[in-house]
Amino acid sequence: MQILQVEGSLVCTSRHEGLKYSTFRIVRDASGKRQVATDPVGAKPGNWVFLASGSAARYAAGDFEILTDLTIAGIIDEWTPEETIEVAS
Amino acid sequence: MQILQVEGSLVCTSRHEGLKYSTFRIVRDASGKRQVATDPVGAKPGNWVFLASGSAARYAAGDFEILTDLTIAGIIDEWTPEETIEVAS
Amino acid sequence: MQILQVEGSLVCTSRHEGLKYSTFRIVRDASGKRQVATDPVGAKPGNWVFLASGSAARYAAGDFEILTDLTIAGIIDEWTPEETIEVAS
Amino acid sequence: MQILQVEGSLVCTSRHEGLKYSTFRIVRDASGKRQVATDPVGAKPGNWVFLASGSAARYAAGDFEILTDLTIAGIIDEWTPEETIEVAS
Amino acid sequence: MQILQVEGSLVCTSRHEGLKYSTFRIVRDASGKRQVATDPVGAKPGNWVFLASGSAARYAAGDFEILTDLTIAGIIDEWTPEETIEVAS
Repeated sequence: MQILQVEGSLVCTSRHEGLKYSTFRIVRDASGKRQVATDPVGAKPGNWVFLASGSAARYAAGDFEILTDLTIAGIIDEWTPEETIEVAS
Repeated sequence: MQILQVEGSLVCTSRHEGLKYSTFRIVRDASGKRQVATDPVGAKPGNWVFLASGSAARYAAGDFEILTDLTIAGIIDEWTPEETIEVAS
Repeated sequence: MQILQVEGSLVCTSRHEGLKYSTFRIVRDASGKRQVATDPVGAKPGNWVFLASGSAARYAAGDFEILTDLTIAGIIDEWTPEETIEVAS
Repeated sequence: MQILQVEGSLVCTSRHEGLKYSTFRIVRDASGKRQVATDPVGAKPGNWVFLASGSAARYAAGDFEILTDLTIAGIIDEWTPEETIEVAS
Repeated sequence: MQILQVEGSLVCTSRHEGLKYSTFRIVRDASGKRQVATDPVGAKPGNWVFLASGSAARYAAGDFEILTDLTIAGIIDEWTPEETIEVAS
């Protein structure tokens, strides 16, 4: 699962009805590349999150009918991008 | 979900019958790389859109039998590529 | 859906029976990277085509049991790679 | 299947209930890019592992309902990254 | 479908039971990047092969329950990497 940082929310008034009442977040990787993800977890701007992609994203959105390919699955408690983190087994 | 800009429509007279009467758009990323997406939303050239890929694209096309792997899911109200957008939670 | 150019056919006498009697094409992107695609459309060398990937490729192959992940979905009437095409809505 | 090295465990107190009681590992490739994977195998930090992605990851997690897109499938006995390994048929 | 070269077999004594008795091959692309693939075809080191990815890989493995995302689908009779091959329709 990708590790990305939440940048903010997405304003989108014209959208596919299959997206229902999903909350969207703009997420970005270390290089600044941005994507849109559905967020059933309630992440905040600045949070580092990991995300389920593909068909798992639809399940994770809480309703298999929600037409997303990327969903926030969890918020990482502490994250130092691009550095070695503590190794614990 | 990827964020791409609509460039225009695609003219394609020889196509797989599984594509039915879908409308196709040429979409491109910031580097100019282009793909073809089905469009059930009615996006216009210049619009920035986000797109569902994989099996979600078929659901989003309005008919699971439509043989696409990329479908426009929504039009973003305002988008400034490659710059920081307003952060709102 | 990716946009690729047909380079030619693939000769492959030892293959998985799940591929059945599919026709294969070698397709390449602008940088020359090549992949193998099934072709239910009848594309010719030099044609620019767009292709369905993932599970859509199996549906597009005309038989969900055909074990492909890339299938030609349509032949583009005119295509100028790496240049701006006419924008029409 | 990708070949990645286990870096450590992931601490994540706020997570999607669909992840259940999965164990998560941080895994990284040769360039240091990190992802999160579920681990039903019991890999240790430093192990080189290969991982199933996509819908196979959910099956491999031991429960199709677990909302992951990357699962450790096996631990490689010996691995020398970026060098030619012994060829055996 | 990706075109890769078989490098050798993989020794892996600790593995997920969902992989059953699959034969694994190490496969690499022109740049040397390596992945693990299941092999129901019997490819030899040095062979150039094309591979089904995603859910097709599970079907191609001969048993949908085998937890792979990459399976060798056929051996290419002749292959000259990075050069133009004969064009035949």
